[in-house]
Amino acid sequence: MAEKRKTAITPTREQDYPEWYQQVVRAAELAEVSPVRGCMVIKPWGWGIWENMQRVLDGMFKATGHENAYFPLFIPMSFLEKEAEHVEGFAKECAVVTHHRLEPGPDGGLVPAGRLEEPLIVRPTSETIIGAMYAQWVQSYRDLPILINQWANVVRWELRTRLFLRTTEFLWQEGHTAHATEQEAREETALMLDVYADFAENWMAMPVIKGEKTAGERFPGAIATLSIEAMMQDRKALQAGTSHFLGQNFSKAQEIKFQDPNGQEVYAWTTSWGVSTRLVGALVMTHSDDDGLILPPKLAPKHVVVLPIYRNDQERADVLEYCNRLVAQLNDATFSGGAIRAWIDDRDLRGGEKNWQHVKKGVPLRVEVGPRDLAKNGVFLARRDTSEKRGLDRDEFVGTVGTLLDEIQDGLYQRALALRESNTRQIDNLDDFRQYFTPNDEQRPEIHGGFAMCHWAEDPAVDQILKDLKVTIRCIPLATEADAGTCIFTGKPSAGRAVFAKAY
Amino acid sequence: MAEKRKTAITPTREQDYPEWYQQVVRAAELAEVSPVRGCMVIKPWGWGIWENMQRVLDGMFKATGHENAYFPLFIPMSFLEKEAEHVEGFAKECAVVTHHRLEPGPDGGLVPAGRLEEPLIVRPTSETIIGAMYAQWVQSYRDLPILINQWANVVRWELRTRLFLRTTEFLWQEGHTAHATEQEAREETALMLDVYADFAENWMAMPVIKGEKTAGERFPGAIATLSIEAMMQDRKALQAGTSHFLGQNFSKAQEIKFQDPNGQEVYAWTTSWGVSTRLVGALVMTHSDDDGLILPPKLAPKHVVVLPIYRNDQERADVLEYCNRLVAQLNDATFSGGAIRAWIDDRDLRGGEKNWQHVKKGVPLRVEVGPRDLAKNGVFLARRDTSEKRGLDRDEFVGTVGTLLDEIQDGLYQRALALRESNTRQIDNLDDFRQYFTPNDEQRPEIHGGFAMCHWAEDPAVDQILKDLKVTIRCIPLATEADAGTCIFTGKPSAGRAVFAKAY
Repeated sequence: MAEKRKTAITPTREQDYPEWYQQVVRAAELAEVSPVRGCMVIKPWGWGIWENMQRVLDGMFKATGHENAYFPLFIPMSFLEKEAEHVEGFAKECAVVTHHRLEPGPDGGLVPAGRLEEPLIVRPTSETIIGAMYAQWVQSYRDLPILINQWANVVRWELRTRLFLRTTEFLWQEGHTAHATEQEAREETALMLDVYADFAENWMAMPVIKGEKTAGERFPGAIATLSIEAMMQDRKALQAGTSHFLGQNFSKAQEIKFQDPNGQEVYAWTTSWGVSTRLVGALVMTHSDDDGLILPPKLAPKHVVVLPIYRNDQERADVLEYCNRLVAQLNDATFSGGAIRAWIDDRDLRGGEKNWQHVKKGVPLRVEVGPRDLAKNGVFLARRDTSEKRGLDRDEFVGTVGTLLDEIQDGLYQRALALRESNTRQIDNLDDFRQYFTPNDEQRPEIHGGFAMCHWAEDPAVDQILKDLKVTIRCIPLATEADAGTCIFTGKPSAGRAVFAKAY
Repeated sequence: MAEKRKTAITPTREQDYPEWYQQVVRAAELAEVSPVRGCMVIKPWGWGIWENMQRVLDGMFKATGHENAYFPLFIPMSFLEKEAEHVEGFAKECAVVTHHRLEPGPDGGLVPAGRLEEPLIVRPTSETIIGAMYAQWVQSYRDLPILINQWANVVRWELRTRLFLRTTEFLWQEGHTAHATEQEAREETALMLDVYADFAENWMAMPVIKGEKTAGERFPGAIATLSIEAMMQDRKALQAGTSHFLGQNFSKAQEIKFQDPNGQEVYAWTTSWGVSTRLVGALVMTHSDDDGLILPPKLAPKHVVVLPIYRNDQERADVLEYCNRLVAQLNDATFSGGAIRAWIDDRDLRGGEKNWQHVKKGVPLRVEVGPRDLAKNGVFLARRDTSEKRGLDRDEFVGTVGTLLDEIQDGLYQRALALRESNTRQIDNLDDFRQYFTPNDEQRPEIHGGFAMCHWAEDPAVDQILKDLKVTIRCIPLATEADAGTCIFTGKPSAGRAVFAKAY
């Protein structure tokens, strides 16, 4: 029993959740810190997940009428300055290019040379440079809408970084659309939030709450910011995607204007929306356990690893032939995530070590095949999500593997949803609120209640209480019914409850 | 007849080839210059071509055992300095990040602040940062080979830029591999050149010569650089892809070493190889004509545009129904490039203007459908590559459209090959060589012979003659038979002919 309780990941989630996360990312070979401050290296298994995320999201964007394009990495400093709130939001975290070559310095080493007349900012987001192009492209209402997405890297100089969750350079997609009317732009903002929620729930198996951010949490320069919020296993919230209604703020700053059908010159209405490699971090924290990564099959780079077991060359030949046929059969099968991807791992490694590598990497199904399995036309199957192991008939396995992967996908979603539901409470007075978010163990500041649904009103006093408790308003859920009440912080009238939580 | 000779692109190829190129790129809506010096905006139609290139190449890389990963955008200056030739090659064109925030300056505007202790270079290529990671990943021969590719943006501060062909920021893939033996690394270098040649010929319909670069044209730090070279319609050469055998130069600079099977510590052998968005420029220059872009169907974003023609609402309803069914049938068909992508263009635009847009964008097939076509179950088909137009039976069209697209693909390759063959000459004396490359019209310096296959020997005198004529040695073809001769420049013995040409 003692052996059984030893976990592949140290520390466990209970012992130290933040460190557990870092260790899972490392053990699953998803990513590593690089020698460049705050920048990560995404390793092939981590890239495989991101590649799947890109493929699925890209299909969803195209299905909703968007096209891809690509805009410059650099933004002239003066462009960023055009929208006042926007530049204020990003000025503190800009990587600034000031020179365009290197030359030998006085002490023999190289020094920057060729000073630029105007510094260039490595894009932290692309509203300003894309807006400058849209201003050229739009003359008439007939040129609208523009529905463009870009897959790109962006840089925000973060002081504290964590793999995937917050890195100086990260990869993302940013949609930027321009519309003739306010209503159309608002509909676009809501549509893309729906796309993100659909992706989170049906591909990542991660339940999310769709909502609107409060004024203090809006994207710099936006009129409204919508977001999807998910609960991680430490019961903290993670913002997993945002969709911004920018009104005419950016179009006025950048002169995106057009002749409407009546010949009037008016400003366009714009939106922007994005998700990033942060989603890989969210995926890890939603599903993984103390033995490492657990992946929803619909985003797993591969689904089934076949592990041949043999003691001599004759057994090896027989077992490998059996395994090859099995892999071919599996690769012909499908599930709701598409084609099944199976492969044989015949590396020369101890069986235990090899097996644990696949556990830690979250391969959904492991299949051991040895001489005894050949004799009875069987396989020995291990599920990563439940740790269940059993022998079964080979044909039965091949015939049901698609259903099994769908079952795993659904089970992960249900498990995550149950966690959120059992850690979400309506709270109606400040004492309960404080207790809910106050660590019950001084050594374990990460222990707290989860999501609190509370009445509230905008007021500086509320901001101070939340700041002291390190709690934020995650969002005002879009799905809330009208539910008048009283702000638990100020006693002011409240039109509905918001979601309060500690957050990443 | 006068009308017929008016071309959609001004100037024509004959009149001014470089300007014709820029106008084709603009008219086809492939890309635009941006307000950021030397950086381009890739528009949706251009991105669609690059997306197809990425998809096909990515599949080829995976089929040859490579995985994707992602490494940081920034390279610490000291990393670049580790390999002496390498830094010398790139120092003059580095974008240098020196600060990490902006703050209000004395005159109210923003100024860079937060100076970095060590400047960061925006990657011009990633050998040094990737090598630093490989040094951590490789301990034993069992950790080799490492076969990784990265899709990324890179920056080289170019003084003269041209859309796709030479831009400050460009997109590319860079493969970086590490091997236990020299032979394996050399085989990898050759293998990836073959992949590039396969892609160029069978997808881009662009014939290429595979060869090795001379010492002066090698990648900075490489032992050998292989390249594929294509002839553009102005008979200049364009280097379309390179594959470098780096020997142990980078592994020594970066300490990529491992224990071999005998327990000896030795340095790894590395390679790198890449193609970029430059390929889109090559595609344009290989196939397009004076009416705009011509695309090989296997890389065209879309294949068939259906143009409905009607004069009233009743005709409109009937014609659109017919067109919708036609598009559905076409989208169920395939050709050797995969699924056929057809769509209806029912925008409210004059028919002539609409038609010319698709001509200029290089849609391989245009199909007009009007009431008379409905009556006889027909379509009116126009081929972009040959300008041939004819009415034909609808079922016949649907049944043969795949074959037709394959025929177009093959025709474009044959046309490009014929151009190269009729503009390639063996030249055996310096006078002929000079004449071949000397403009026969002082007003038209772009007019010259094409490719010259000549005997040569390494010598500074050769370099000077070539420099004066603005001719370069493109490569020493891999396929050359042993063919001893005499260097036409120096009279020294020569082991074989090289390809000489003016080049992009």
